Parts: sequence; C-alpha cells; structure tokens
Amino acid sequence: MTDHGMKERPLFRQALGAVLRAYRFESGRTLRDIAQKAQLSSGYLSELERGHKEMSSEVLESLCDALNVDVSVVLLRVSGELAAASSSSLLSGISTAN
Amino acid sequence: MTDHGMKERPLFRQALGAVLRAYRFESGRTLRDIAQKAQLSSGYLSELERGHKEMSSEVLESLCDALNVDVSVVLLRVSGELAAASSSSLLSGISTAN
Repeated sequence: MTDHGMKERPLFRQALGAVLRAYRFESGRTLRDIAQKAQLSSGYLSELERGHKEMSSEVLESLCDALNVDVSVVLLRVSGELAAASSSSLLSGISTAN
Repeated sequence: MTDHGMKERPLFRQALGAVLRAYRFESGRTLRDIAQKAQLSSGYLSELERGHKEMSSEVLESLCDALNVDVSVVLLRVSGELAAASSSSLLSGISTAN
C-alpha cells in the first residue's frame, strides 16, 4: 500500500519522539541542553526523538521535566497526532476501496 | 510524604496498564482471552496491566487491536488519568503548604 505516497501510521514511540522534539524546538532549546537537564546522552535523546528506541516511563518524566511540560499534555498531543494519522489512513482507505 | 494517605502520581506505564485493564473489564473479557488475541502470555499481560513492565509500541498496538480500541483513544484516557492525578497532587500541595 504505497499508493499516493501515503505514510504508514506512526507507532507510539515515533509519535512521542516527534512531539517531544516539537516541544524542544518550540522552546528554542538544543538537544544537548535538554539531554543534560534530563541526564541523558545527546545521542540517546536523538534516538528517542526519532522514535528509534522505546523510553522508560522514568525517562519520559525526566524529559517532560526538562521541557517544562506535563506528561499528560505530551500524551494528549501524541493522542491527537495518532488520531489525525488514523483519519488520513481511513480516508485513504475509503478513496482506494474497491 | 504519606500525609492524608495520598497516593503518588502514577508513572505512565502504571496509568497505561490501568487503562488497558479498565477496557478489558468494560468489555467483559478475560486476561487469557486478550493475551491470546495479542499473542502474549497471560502472566506478561498481567504484569503490563499492573504497570510492572514497560510495553513496546508494538505490544501496545497488539493489545489495542485485541481490545478493539484505538491507541489514540487509550492515550487520551491515560492523559486524563494523569492530569487528574496531577490536580489532586497540586491541591494537596496547596493545602499542606507552609
């Protein structure tokens, strides 16, 4: 199903990484700054932001603290991103249905 | 800080496990039924529901499929649970502040 160049719906860790990166960009902070505050290596944070690795709940808390955002707010945004991706898939499914 | 018998705010994996268990209860299905559908052992699913282990994004997808609920809906509910727990902590913090 590569019709229309549609992207697959992201997995939770990919949507979560993208949202955490968005919060970092919006606050104008560097990977290094946030990694240091959350006591992670920059390389590891980069892997997390790109959704290449699962993060523990403790790391999620540390990152949200470093970004000054509540975990519940981050999850709300992730939920929205996944719901939006889901709707696109549904629409795509309808438009390409037999 | 055990004042007023307050519970600590749950970690993400604890809130997620509790929400997944709630969906299972609401649908009247057994641990064994959902574990089988999601291709997990009942023991492992039980650990996940109790928030004792982190689950991968792939396992989260499988469980949501088995429960017939969208990942985005589960995350929305987890977000709400954490926000509610946060508000209680805030209120408790205010009432016990010096």
